[in-house]
Amino acid sequence: MANSKYDVTAIGNAIVDVLAHAEDKFLVEQKLAKGAMSLIDPPTADRLYGLMNAGVEASGGSAANTIAGLAGLGGKGAFIGKVANDKLGEAFTHDIRAAGVAFDTPMLVNGATTARCLIFVTPDAQRTMQTFLGACVELGPEDVEEDKIKNSQVVYLEGYLFDPPRAKEAFFKAAKIAKQAGTKVSLSLSDAFCVGRYRAEFLDLIKNHVDILFANETEITSLFEVDDFDKALQQIKGMCEIAALTRSEKGSVIVKAGETHIVDAEKGVKVVDTTGAGDAYAAGFLYGYTQGKSMAQAGKLGGMLAAEIISHYGARAESDLKQLAKKAFA
Amino acid sequence: MANSKYDVTAIGNAIVDVLAHAEDKFLVEQKLAKGAMSLIDPPTADRLYGLMNAGVEASGGSAANTIAGLAGLGGKGAFIGKVANDKLGEAFTHDIRAAGVAFDTPMLVNGATTARCLIFVTPDAQRTMQTFLGACVELGPEDVEEDKIKNSQVVYLEGYLFDPPRAKEAFFKAAKIAKQAGTKVSLSLSDAFCVGRYRAEFLDLIKNHVDILFANETEITSLFEVDDFDKALQQIKGMCEIAALTRSEKGSVIVKAGETHIVDAEKGVKVVDTTGAGDAYAAGFLYGYTQGKSMAQAGKLGGMLAAEIISHYGARAESDLKQLAKKAFA
Repeated sequence: MANSKYDVTAIGNAIVDVLAHAEDKFLVEQKLAKGAMSLIDPPTADRLYGLMNAGVEASGGSAANTIAGLAGLGGKGAFIGKVANDKLGEAFTHDIRAAGVAFDTPMLVNGATTARCLIFVTPDAQRTMQTFLGACVELGPEDVEEDKIKNSQVVYLEGYLFDPPRAKEAFFKAAKIAKQAGTKVSLSLSDAFCVGRYRAEFLDLIKNHVDILFANETEITSLFEVDDFDKALQQIKGMCEIAALTRSEKGSVIVKAGETHIVDAEKGVKVVDTTGAGDAYAAGFLYGYTQGKSMAQAGKLGGMLAAEIISHYGARAESDLKQLAKKAFA
Repeated sequence: MANSKYDVTAIGNAIVDVLAHAEDKFLVEQKLAKGAMSLIDPPTADRLYGLMNAGVEASGGSAANTIAGLAGLGGKGAFIGKVANDKLGEAFTHDIRAAGVAFDTPMLVNGATTARCLIFVTPDAQRTMQTFLGACVELGPEDVEEDKIKNSQVVYLEGYLFDPPRAKEAFFKAAKIAKQAGTKVSLSLSDAFCVGRYRAEFLDLIKNHVDILFANETEITSLFEVDDFDKALQQIKGMCEIAALTRSEKGSVIVKAGETHIVDAEKGVKVVDTTGAGDAYAAGFLYGYTQGKSMAQAGKLGGMLAAEIISHYGARAESDLKQLAKKAFA
């Protein structure tokens, strides 16, 4: 598959982020679940936006961040996701295409607005996300471009796709096409609360459809309802071809068949904003994987890209990622 | 082997520690290799002892610390090692027997004095060890008690035994008896410099004689001459039955057949003096192992015992270890 047109096609919620600093006190007052992604309705989005400090807007979305990162590293990426034909939808489209990613999903016309995620970054660099899904709820199987999936080495799906009603159908359609074409299916568990919402379905998916799983420590322990990382590690082994598990400052652990790799975190990183850390890790890992690198090298690049992302504000890279890849594979 | 008379028989250098605080400046002036164990001759021992701050004397020795820890946890332990019939030798004998360990190696009469290890503890809690081996150089195969080895679940050998000339013969005699009796052979690599001195022999030992290996990160990377923990991890896999690898604040990793367990370090430990941390880990692990506990439980107790030891001055425990074991196996 090394001659595939795309290294990775990602499917996810197409979201524009609004990032601003906030104090813990604000999260408590507004009853926001710190560190998590919560879904909100339009009135709540308007109310919270009104209370938010002056912030910055930037294209986001978990799988979209990953594919933008992969393209930044030099990979060939495509994205499938639904925006509306409004200003934010145009901005999202511009940004992801400018990153070098193929993006052809038809815009939603005369419907909900483009999705927004209000991200409150607390002084400890943690991010708390409040998402209004907007146009994303209209993503359906008709948006899954068979050609893109077939001509990719990997199709990357975010767990958040289980939130909007019809995206799940798109998800399974993509997985089915992938299986027939020999395209690897990759899933990110997205968020511990998201795992809580869809645990049984995710377990079934991982056992039966997923080749490459991404999860952080809280997600994987939530998946198996255990209190300890090692217990989750023992359970995920053999359940899918590859599991790449991220552990923040403890680095990542990659399990593949009989192999277990422990990749230490990058040292000396000043953490400014953790938004997009997991997305960045997946980007680095998938770039390494699709370039035929070893699990340890892929994990190393994942960790390096995550370190880049958390060292500044916002979920997309600010430095030359091709240099990172060179360093990781040296 | 659950009905063995001893859980573990340990063979090692019988040493009395002299611990004192020192500044990094002192180590530099005296050209001492920080964090390592170096061998010194009697005149150097006298000179350094003269320059040392007021300190405390306490029974030490790597394998002796381990067996004392195992006994403290409730395990049945025996020790083989050589002291002289002098005041320090009497103190060592008293202490190890008071800990509940069987110790019957004949004292050296009319020879070198009991071994001493001058331990300089720097403000960063690191320890730098200068050892005068004294009577230890007289340990030989005639000291290996066949009955003890045969009636143990595990025989535990410290890598430092390769330093004195005849202890190596004792080492191999013990390994041979163990093999015939079905006693597991366990080795601690002791020190990265020790690994450097005997790398080829240690590799051969591990492949052909060792069932349970203990090593810290610098020792295992030194063994395979690699710059990265994960590379060493991949190499040690399958080379012996169990490898328990300690990583200081990163916890430990245990490899057994197809299993890899990641045991996080205890949280909130105030590090005062790292002397004996590895010995304590081995004690906790071997107690768990000989009690038939899982790899994860054994590693957990190892980490808990190491945390106890580094939270105070000196290499032997100060608190009720039986409580620790209860907590680890809960």
